Amino acid sequence: MAETIPIRFGVLGCADIARKVSRAISLAPNATVVAVGSRSADKARRFAVENRYDAAVKIYGSYEAVLDDEAVDAVYVPLPTSLHLRWAVMAAEKKKHVLLEKPVALNVAELDQILAACEANGVQFMDATMWMHHPRTQKMTEALLDPRFGEIKSIHTIFTFSADPDFLENDIRVKPDLDALGALGDTGWYCLRGILWAVDYELPKSVTALRGTVFNKSGVILSCGASLLWEDGKVATFQCGFLSNLSMDITVIGKNGTLHLNDFVIPFTEKSASFSLAMESGFTELVTGWLPIPSQHVVTTELPQEALMVKEFSRLVSTGVDKKWPARSRKTQLVIDAVKASIDKGCEPVDVGA
Amino acid sequence: MAETIPIRFGVLGCADIARKVSRAISLAPNATVVAVGSRSADKARRFAVENRYDAAVKIYGSYEAVLDDEAVDAVYVPLPTSLHLRWAVMAAEKKKHVLLEKPVALNVAELDQILAACEANGVQFMDATMWMHHPRTQKMTEALLDPRFGEIKSIHTIFTFSADPDFLENDIRVKPDLDALGALGDTGWYCLRGILWAVDYELPKSVTALRGTVFNKSGVILSCGASLLWEDGKVATFQCGFLSNLSMDITVIGKNGTLHLNDFVIPFTEKSASFSLAMESGFTELVTGWLPIPSQHVVTTELPQEALMVKEFSRLVSTGVDKKWPARSRKTQLVIDAVKASIDKGCEPVDVGA
Repeated sequence: MAETIPIRFGVLGCADIARKVSRAISLAPNATVVAVGSRSADKARRFAVENRYDAAVKIYGSYEAVLDDEAVDAVYVPLPTSLHLRWAVMAAEKKKHVLLEKPVALNVAELDQILAACEANGVQFMDATMWMHHPRTQKMTEALLDPRFGEIKSIHTIFTFSADPDFLENDIRVKPDLDALGALGDTGWYCLRGILWAVDYELPKSVTALRGTVFNKSGVILSCGASLLWEDGKVATFQCGFLSNLSMDITVIGKNGTLHLNDFVIPFTEKSASFSLAMESGFTELVTGWLPIPSQHVVTTELPQEALMVKEFSRLVSTGVDKKWPARSRKTQLVIDAVKASIDKGCEPVDVGA
Repeated sequence: MAETIPIRFGVLGCADIARKVSRAISLAPNATVVAVGSRSADKARRFAVENRYDAAVKIYGSYEAVLDDEAVDAVYVPLPTSLHLRWAVMAAEKKKHVLLEKPVALNVAELDQILAACEANGVQFMDATMWMHHPRTQKMTEALLDPRFGEIKSIHTIFTFSADPDFLENDIRVKPDLDALGALGDTGWYCLRGILWAVDYELPKSVTALRGTVFNKSGVILSCGASLLWEDGKVATFQCGFLSNLSMDITVIGKNGTLHLNDFVIPFTEKSASFSLAMESGFTELVTGWLPIPSQHVVTTELPQEALMVKEFSRLVSTGVDKKWPARSRKTQLVIDAVKASIDKGCEPVDVGA
């Protein structure tokens, strides 16, 4: 059976996040790391040692060398966003399946080139949004689709963390030439994916940035938010940034149901995660308490969400390309583009592209 | 000691909420109901029976008769908002202390007349925002003021409930001549008070309504939201309305702390309420979980929050007028007025008055 042969990964670059995903590849039953490349072979070698790679893993002093290795089936690309277009397209052209870090591109025009290259070369594309693959997400999807939850009325997401002075000075995510979308591309990506997930990926009609965007001296976004409006009247808001305490909230409110969680991007603990669900909430007779009280739902997982992501990506590589994941990436990017445009226009409403 | 003589309340009107507050007056150790008035003496009599009032409680067929009763020290006024100006001013002029349901007025100009009447007549004014008086609120205030929490960066509040068809057709809160502020005055009042509470009542510089306000056929707001911006860059959002499942959220995010609760207006249970507090949240070494995980704080109370409200109001009546409560009411009303103005102007930013 094709699925029993592990998918052989090459890792392009030695970003911090590559450590977590390297572990995920080793945990996934259908994947294995076979190569790592960096602009410096020394750096790649150190990375291989630090991450206890098998001695058989090939060390390359360039990204291109990884792409030229015929033993590599797929690449994981944690490079700065401004390099995604070049390396993701080249990977696809060399018939490597592409697991790409978020934000996937600087704008949807770039992403469309990446997706076209993947489609033309018959390779799978997936963005590395790990929480999509946690079994909790599937349970929450079922809760939202339960007819008792009712029509979704509003969604509110938050992803912030308090970056230290070194990050705010030196991280690639605050550099206009590396990650020009700043906090919107990094933390905002998750907020917008969370909103789109909640509405089964129906695009909003328009977005309006909230007043109060914070920029660094290079003009990169450090903190922002927006409101979203759908054709049918649904609304959403999000708040993201590098300037306040770690917070990862999704709140979805339907006609008759409310879903809450406060750790949607990275669960508090690796093997068990929970969410709160309220259905047909009302009051006691004298309005002195709630009836019923919201319930807590716990979902356990043997593999962490990032390993489940690698497992699902590898399964698709084995069984045949799936278009659901690139379509979700593209919708997320479309909304990011609209938020960025609204910020640039002084918080005017902007229609979301198609 | 003055405080041992219970404050004698007259209740103006027999609204549903008056049942809960009647019970609260009976539970408060320093308060007692001595009179109830309605436009119909029969209705007042039925209300007295249903609420098991003592036979000595006087029944009046007009509000004015209650105000003319010299045995009444203070009135609780749950009348429709459009009647507040007339009856709260008249109560003050007749030297009755005023516990007034929210929203306190249709706009700040009306409220200023009410407050001027209270001040001129030396009577206490307080709005009936019960959650302010729960000991949990005090504990949360301490958490926000803890220097470890850090500068407050953003606040997000939600209060919605799913009104039934009868409410949406007939409740006073959807009638332009009775409660012209609709869901903004009812549920939005709590959201804005929650935001102001979190920032120690510092007024925002401006507010901008979010696109997507829902009106009924009479033009009364059924659902809306807004973003708020302070001089120092703090931001807030709120969402309120009658059209989605019961939800009562406060999220406050500081530089190094996050506070969450999902039942701020009415705690899930009467005697015990909790909140979640995260301080200096970070990740495990490989970013596979949180370290530390947010902590849950439980606060118990012998008396329900509405009885604590009556107790505090009665204490002030006994010990001397306090200006903190009218100032908080006025700031809440100022922000409501600005949100309403922004909605009326098609979501243009509106400066908050002073």
